[in-house]
Parts: sequence; structure tokens; C-alpha cells
Amino acid sequence: MKKFSVIFFTLLFSISLLAQESLGSRININSPEVNADNTVTFRLLAPKAVKVQVTGDFISGEPRIPVDMVEGENGVWEYTTPPLASELYYYNFIVDGLTIRDPSNVYTIRDIAMIMNVFIVGGDRGDLYSVQDVPHGTVSKVWYDSPTLNMKRRMTVYTPPGYERNSTKYPVLYLLHGAGGDEEAWMDLGRASQIIDNLIARGKAKPMIVVMTNGNPGQEASAGESQMNFDFKPGFRGPNNQRPAASFPDSFKDVKTFIEKNYRVIANKASRAVAGLSMGGGHSYTISKDYPNTFDYVGLFSAAVGPAVDREGNVQNEVIAQLKKQRDNKFKLYWIACGRDDFLYERNLQYMKQLDEMSFPYTYRESDGGHTWRNWRVYLGEFLPMIFK
Amino acid sequence: MKKFSVIFFTLLFSISLLAQESLGSRININSPEVNADNTVTFRLLAPKAVKVQVTGDFISGEPRIPVDMVEGENGVWEYTTPPLASELYYYNFIVDGLTIRDPSNVYTIRDIAMIMNVFIVGGDRGDLYSVQDVPHGTVSKVWYDSPTLNMKRRMTVYTPPGYERNSTKYPVLYLLHGAGGDEEAWMDLGRASQIIDNLIARGKAKPMIVVMTNGNPGQEASAGESQMNFDFKPGFRGPNNQRPAASFPDSFKDVKTFIEKNYRVIANKASRAVAGLSMGGGHSYTISKDYPNTFDYVGLFSAAVGPAVDREGNVQNEVIAQLKKQRDNKFKLYWIACGRDDFLYERNLQYMKQLDEMSFPYTYRESDGGHTWRNWRVYLGEFLPMIFK
Repeated sequence: MKKFSVIFFTLLFSISLLAQESLGSRININSPEVNADNTVTFRLLAPKAVKVQVTGDFISGEPRIPVDMVEGENGVWEYTTPPLASELYYYNFIVDGLTIRDPSNVYTIRDIAMIMNVFIVGGDRGDLYSVQDVPHGTVSKVWYDSPTLNMKRRMTVYTPPGYERNSTKYPVLYLLHGAGGDEEAWMDLGRASQIIDNLIARGKAKPMIVVMTNGNPGQEASAGESQMNFDFKPGFRGPNNQRPAASFPDSFKDVKTFIEKNYRVIANKASRAVAGLSMGGGHSYTISKDYPNTFDYVGLFSAAVGPAVDREGNVQNEVIAQLKKQRDNKFKLYWIACGRDDFLYERNLQYMKQLDEMSFPYTYRESDGGHTWRNWRVYLGEFLPMIFK
Repeated sequence: MKKFSVIFFTLLFSISLLAQESLGSRININSPEVNADNTVTFRLLAPKAVKVQVTGDFISGEPRIPVDMVEGENGVWEYTTPPLASELYYYNFIVDGLTIRDPSNVYTIRDIAMIMNVFIVGGDRGDLYSVQDVPHGTVSKVWYDSPTLNMKRRMTVYTPPGYERNSTKYPVLYLLHGAGGDEEAWMDLGRASQIIDNLIARGKAKPMIVVMTNGNPGQEASAGESQMNFDFKPGFRGPNNQRPAASFPDSFKDVKTFIEKNYRVIANKASRAVAGLSMGGGHSYTISKDYPNTFDYVGLFSAAVGPAVDREGNVQNEVIAQLKKQRDNKFKLYWIACGRDDFLYERNLQYMKQLDEMSFPYTYRESDGGHTWRNWRVYLGEFLPMIFK
């Protein structure tokens, strides 16, 4: 086959330049280029454009102000950032007011209805978020029955390196997304499989199974993966006009039953954790309280929590009683993390005040920044080494 | 939590309109809109644009000529197609010469270095390519050791509905991609999991395990999933300057060993199939010939095959001997499919002529069209019902 292969590839390559529908731009634009000094250069060929800008979370300041790019020879617009800290960054171009993806960069991440290009500046966090030369876990998209929601539903399951080749039982982390997210969010925006692979390889996290559910009880699956197919328009509340049979926390027992039946798990409290961001932090609060002797580890990341009071300000005694039960049953870690600029910051402070009043033990991690995936990746990287010890 | 949820979502939604980095365009443009008569309307808000076109495989004719869109009120450009046959289609917009994705459509597929929006016109094929109300298999991204290539490598494994909950053993189809593709290609461009789920549910295909490898022997994994991370620029040959230790067919034994060790497979010839498109068709030809008593079912889709002759036109006797051995060992199906407009059409005819000369039995399926995923999805839908009977 050797000679034939050479002929074939030459043929294919020639043909492809003429006919293939799959080739990108003919002109070779390198964008984004991460330079040796950690500056990053963006480039866009747009000879007819009047104004080209780049926006993204590499720009600091609030509100974020897009940066003008400068047109050079051949209609290539360019901008080079200052040196950037090691991180995963998002960006888009704005061409005469129209927000577009960088045609030279195939790497994108969807956050709800927005698709952004991504790049990584390596070194510290960037390496933690990258595929490294380490053993890799398996990432599966699995459908389970949820009798509570009367639906087949999709989840993402990470099993640690070697799972297929041994008979070990593993602890389980249930890792929940926020409003507008789905069972893809922690993998795509959260870089969860890279973080877990890397922390396990560094000996900083225990090998574990990580279960990432879809927390929208009206949805079977993420955008494009449900029976709505491409008719589904992603938004904050999942499909419109759908009245779920129950809340996601109410249906959590279906998830737990499926996982404990079909995976090799250590089915005890010391080997169960639940954590989530924003709405998923609220879900983690609810689930750990509703199953008050089930989880030794709870993580609330920028959580949608608050003091247990109703609209009139009256304390909800049944909720307090549940939390006290959870407290009395004991657990090893109740970790609350929030950024000082988060719109849920005050709510989290109020929640912790109520926890203090009932001597409910927790650990608080306050960070810079707001309600962003940048923070949630950091929190996951800090939470994983603390669980299943 | 009910009241709290309402407050939280109201708060979150209000905040998000101001601050969230994840919201799409404020103006609600519906694009693409598949109309009741199977025409499709594309819309783009681009008030500053001078010329806006749409291109895609809904346009017939060769070469494909992009269609002008017409600017309406409020700067929204629009075009409505004629009625379209049921199918999965690709498209892009061209705004003043710049090819962009439709910002109103989050659904995209990457074909090598090109990212295209997609939509489905339902009914016939469109339904086969859609998520339906049927049991779904599990799709896993799994890493395996390839001693032959001296690498950890990633593959996609489809296990049929119920696999986790029974102890049945299943037949295995090895399904291989073409040049420039990777272990994601059959799932994303080929809609393989939808096709298989739907054909199993209709009773037309046997439940089976489908193994989709990465056929580029210099690559660990698909774009963004290898140690090159986002530095990898997709192209026809995988990473530059990389000299693989062996060919993919030479390393196939590592794939087979891993699958037969770690999955519940029926490890016999009657329960093994290998099929692929283009380069993967060439791989299927090579693998089935190199393991001449291993597969009862072989599928060559627009395959990179040709008569066994060297550059000087001399017949390669050792190859002929292998094919005769495969013929003598017998098999149930050797299926060759090619489109009349395919650039490999003549090569396939020449290959079949050589097969005829040695009375090597095969089935030939000639179709319209060329070297396109549209054809490969059709071929997969026809091949699956013929195997493991």
C-alpha cells in the first residue's frame, strides 16, 4: 500500500483544492498566535471591512471594551495583547458591528447561545486545562431512565484511567451545571476531563467517577441531542412551554440509582460528593440537604443559595430542620466558594450567616472575579484535591 | 425551593441581560427557518453589509454558486430556498467576501478546517439522521494503548441501548473515517449514533458495538483532544513533521485487542465487520485483506482503492495472493459503494475489474453524487441492515 498511498494522497490533495467542500481559507492566516512572551496576536483577513475589533475575556475592566484591530498589508487586520496570565480565554471578532468567529481557529466553545473561539496560554492554569501526556479517563454520553421526570435523559460520565481494565470500585462526584448549561457544560466550558486527568496524574486527586447531569428538568439532553434536534434554541430556561414533572433535585434519585447500579462505585457516604455552580450550586445545596446522610463532600460554587426565608422574610423552619439534620449527621467538607464581584455574593454571605447561627460547619473560599467559568474551573481544581481523602 | 427558584431566575435573567458573557444577539432572528413546505429561510442581521450571500450543499450544480440574500427592513438579509428534499444540509453566510457562521444557529459541524452551520429537513433521511423517541446507545471517548504506534490513542465507541444493563455479547463494526477526519467524524458529520439508534429501533439493524478509530497514525486524538491541544491546525495529513511508527492498518491489531478485551463482543468472524469511507475505505480494504479470515462483512464507501499494480503498472502478486486467500476463506458481504461523480470512481471500477478477474465476489452499489458525507450517510444507512444477519 505504501506507493499507492503516496499516489492517493497526492491525488486527493490536488482534487481537494479544487473540489472538496471541507477546506478552509486558502490564505494561511495564523490566528490566534500565542507568542513566546505570552502576548497573543489575533489576525483576520477582511479587506472590505471598515472597522474590525476583537473582544474577549482577555480584556480586563467592566464593562469590557472591544479593542480595535489595525489593518495591515493584504487586508489582514491584527492586534497583539499585552502579556497574558496562563489561562483559557474566549474571544470573538466584531467586523463592522457583526460578531463573528475567527475563521483561522477551529476551536470554539458554546456557552448557552453564544459560540466563542478559545485559546490557552500555557504554564500554570493553562496546563491544568490542557491535554497532557498522562493517562486519560473515558468520557461517555449515557442515557438513563428518569421515572420522576418521565423521560429518557442524557448525562456525561467520566470514568478514571484504567476503569475498563480493573475491577476497582470508585468514589463518585456528582458535578452540576448552571442555568442555561447542560450535560456538556462542565466538559466543554469547565475543561473537567482535563482537570481531573491532570490532578489524578499529579497524585492530587483520587481516581473517581464524575457524573455530569442535565439539570434542566424539562430537557432530555443538551442542544441538538434531544428529540427537538436543531429546533431547540438554547436559552436560560431550556425548552419553552415545557412544564417539567418535578424539579431536578427531586429527580436526583433516578441519577443515583442508575449510577450505583451500572458503575463500579463505592456506595457509601464517604465516597459520595455533590458540587455545582450557580443553579447547580443551588441543586447541590438542595440535594445534600434532602439526602442529609448521603454526601461527605458538598461544593457550592457561586451557588444560587440564600437564607431559608420566604418572600415575606419569615424563616422556613422545615428547611432549617433539614439543614440541622444534615449538620447532626456530620460530613467532612461543605465548601462554599464565591467571587467578590459575583451577583450572588451577598446571597452567599446571607446564607453563611444563617449557617453560622445554627453552627453548621463550612469552609468559605472567597475569590476575585464574578460569575464566570474562569472561577468555576479554579474552584473545581481546588475542590477535587479535598474530596475522598 | 419553589419560591426561591422564581426569585433566583428572575434575578439571574435580569442580571444576565446586563452582565453575562454568554448571551447571544439581543435581536431575535429566526434562522434557519424550515418552513412547512420544506423551503428554508435564512436570515442575517447585518445593517452595514454591502453584499450578503449564502452558500451550502442545498445549492445544486457544480461549481456551487452562492446565492445573494436580499436586505429587508432593519438590516435583516433574507433568502428562501426552493423546497428541499429531506436531508442534513450545511451552509455558511458570506458577508462582503468574509465567510461566517450564522449567529442565530448554534449548530455547527467541523469538516477538517471548515466549520459549517447545519440544519435538517425532516421526513425521510432527515428523520434517520435525527434524535428520535427511541432507546439510545452510549457514545464513549476511550483511550487505548497502541504499542505498534507507540502512543496512547483515542477512539469513539458506540455501545447499543441496554449494553450497561445486560450481559449480552455483541457483534462489532469497525467504522473508519477518511483523510482529514478523525475519531469524531462519523459521529458528527456521519450522524452515526442517530442512524444506528434509529435502525436498531426499527428492527432493521442488529444491536452492535461500533468502533470509530482515529485513522491518522501520527495523531493521538482529534483536533483539540491531543497533547497539541489548540496548537493543532487540522489538515489532510494530521500533524506536520510527524513520522508515524507504522500505518494505521498495521496498528489495527491494537484496536481489535483492546475492544475484544474490554467490551462484551462476540469474537468471531461472523460478528466482525469493517467499513470506511475514502482513506478509511482503503484501510478497510487493507485490514480485511491483511486479516483474511477475520471479517464476514466489509464495506468500502468511496474507497481509496485501486487495482494492485505498482507505479510501473506491474501487478503486485503478493497483494493478489492475499485477496485470493481472503476469497478462499469466504465471507458474507464485500460491499463497494461509489458515486458516479466521485474522483475515485474510475479507481473503484478498475479495482472491481481486478476482483472480477480473480472471481472475488462483491456487491456494487453505484449512486449519484460524489465524494461527500451526504453519500457516506446514505451508504451507512444501507450497509448496517446487511450485516450480522
